[in-house]
Amino acid sequence: MTIPAPYLLYLGHSDDEIGLKTSRGLAAFRGADCVGEWRHSDCPFTLGLPQMNADTARAAGARTLVLGIANPGGRFPGWMIGDALAAIRAGLNVACGLHERLRDVPELVEAAKAAGVELFDVRDAPAGLPVGNGRRRAGNRLLTVGTDCSVGKMYATLGLRDALRARGVTADFRATGQTGILIAGEGVPLDAVVADFIAGAIETLAPAREDDGWDLIEGQGSLFHPAFAGVSTGLLHGAQPAALVLCHDPLRPHMRGLPHCPMPGLAECLDANLRVARLTSPNVRGVGVALNTAKLDELTARRMCREAEDALGLPCTDPYRFGSEAIIDLLLETSCAAPSPFAMTASH
Amino acid sequence: MTIPAPYLLYLGHSDDEIGLKTSRGLAAFRGADCVGEWRHSDCPFTLGLPQMNADTARAAGARTLVLGIANPGGRFPGWMIGDALAAIRAGLNVACGLHERLRDVPELVEAAKAAGVELFDVRDAPAGLPVGNGRRRAGNRLLTVGTDCSVGKMYATLGLRDALRARGVTADFRATGQTGILIAGEGVPLDAVVADFIAGAIETLAPAREDDGWDLIEGQGSLFHPAFAGVSTGLLHGAQPAALVLCHDPLRPHMRGLPHCPMPGLAECLDANLRVARLTSPNVRGVGVALNTAKLDELTARRMCREAEDALGLPCTDPYRFGSEAIIDLLLETSCAAPSPFAMTASH
Repeated sequence: MTIPAPYLLYLGHSDDEIGLKTSRGLAAFRGADCVGEWRHSDCPFTLGLPQMNADTARAAGARTLVLGIANPGGRFPGWMIGDALAAIRAGLNVACGLHERLRDVPELVEAAKAAGVELFDVRDAPAGLPVGNGRRRAGNRLLTVGTDCSVGKMYATLGLRDALRARGVTADFRATGQTGILIAGEGVPLDAVVADFIAGAIETLAPAREDDGWDLIEGQGSLFHPAFAGVSTGLLHGAQPAALVLCHDPLRPHMRGLPHCPMPGLAECLDANLRVARLTSPNVRGVGVALNTAKLDELTARRMCREAEDALGLPCTDPYRFGSEAIIDLLLETSCAAPSPFAMTASH
Repeated sequence: MTIPAPYLLYLGHSDDEIGLKTSRGLAAFRGADCVGEWRHSDCPFTLGLPQMNADTARAAGARTLVLGIANPGGRFPGWMIGDALAAIRAGLNVACGLHERLRDVPELVEAAKAAGVELFDVRDAPAGLPVGNGRRRAGNRLLTVGTDCSVGKMYATLGLRDALRARGVTADFRATGQTGILIAGEGVPLDAVVADFIAGAIETLAPAREDDGWDLIEGQGSLFHPAFAGVSTGLLHGAQPAALVLCHDPLRPHMRGLPHCPMPGLAECLDANLRVARLTSPNVRGVGVALNTAKLDELTARRMCREAEDALGLPCTDPYRFGSEAIIDLLLETSCAAPSPFAMTASH
């Protein structure tokens, strides 16, 4: 799926900062391909890009409007369709990663046909996925896991990839969510796969590799999120990871969207992930913690990283802000067969 | 979805005894609606029903051929389509619970139209499912969980329902798989739901109930099966069960379809399930073990039940063979708030 750049990134009327993560991720990792952002006056957020609407963006060379909003359930906000229609009429393609599909909205399909532009539904799962088999396969794989949804797993995964590459190690990003797929141009939208095929989809996405390179697999959800832990579990089993990096947002007050659900502790969360991962990867180990410190001043951010290091006995950093050197050191220094500091006797 | 009875149960050329569970389940629980079985000479199994083909079954009054075969991946065996076509031409409706859909096979669709019969794809997930929210909801819910797929969770669930009803307790079976749905006439085919909605589907299937009755929720997969643990995890979270019953087939040599995956121990398996369930149901407890002893002589079966009782400190029975009295006793005697014999300090 090649989605024509440059992009106009959509914020619309959103008042959910976390939900803008797809637009924000594209701005961060595909910035050269983004000409502007389209936000209405009631949207309190900005990506720092030039403000445009469909017409001014088209005039500035944009070719695709990316409806970069991610919300639980993945349904269209009511106000989105009208803007998508305006973009189509202005001559822009439209890309969207929600569970609801652009192609299922007749007025968008008709307008796109009339305007000669394309609709891209990024969250389509590939056909013909196998069920998982859990057979040990060759290759180095690292999976990011999280205390919650939307805590920075994709940023951490891309940061780790870049840090490995900077050391001369072959490293590939394996995207599992809409934002990662838009950034990488390929991947599997894991939460849109039929439930029986979650693990099999990941076995397919990150197959055996015989070189010394690493697959860096983007995590999804959290074992502690009561809606999405099934996806996280299948991902852990399918990824068969040699290493986990635990991702966390220290300012998250409770599980995303669920004020009645407290956040898990870091050690508790890493331990639960290692326990589940061990079913298909008995020697899996935690190699680091990635904190999302975007909203913290540097002193506070560095202090929080040190505290997490002391608590878990693993390197902790904000990969996007401070780099990933200490995590990469541990990842490359230690043999995969070495016991994890979190090794447990139970196999699950 | 009302599928016209009586049924002709299909075994075809299958040499996978476990895979016949849908036909076998209908014979066991909807026997009065089943006129015969259709097996070819190379199929070594029988349900003990009269042998028929499409034509003789139609003559005997059958109205629907049930393609009651369940295989990993849910694709049509190559030999199945020809027989489905013969059934359609004989005037039978056709029902199927695989992931592949009858309606996606043009020659079946055309033949059904020509013959004036219907095709029923039982494994269609309902539209508009919500994501889960994990909010505590009223009502008594019991979930069966398993050491593996296809170990008898549905039989145990139906047996427990009947035993509760025999005590005058309102009890409802909540089907989550194709066989259960065919037996009950309703339910959600959980493994066919899009991954993001696994838990939400179960919250919808077994909503809050204000009476003293019980929802008996059919389990799926196993936390220890590397292909299907995601489904099992979402089901545990969505079910928010007060009680778990652990189901096991003592003759299963390894995880279904995976000779490289050993079976988990009973205590280890129950412990893992309680740990996961506790995220949304902190006071969940194990109330019994259900062994599938269909292939064991009675002495051996009773000995194995005693051994499991001694090992776990919970009542153990084969609900289909020996009834469920001891499990029901524990379920009804103990307050839901009582600590589980498997209570752990970790919340996951």
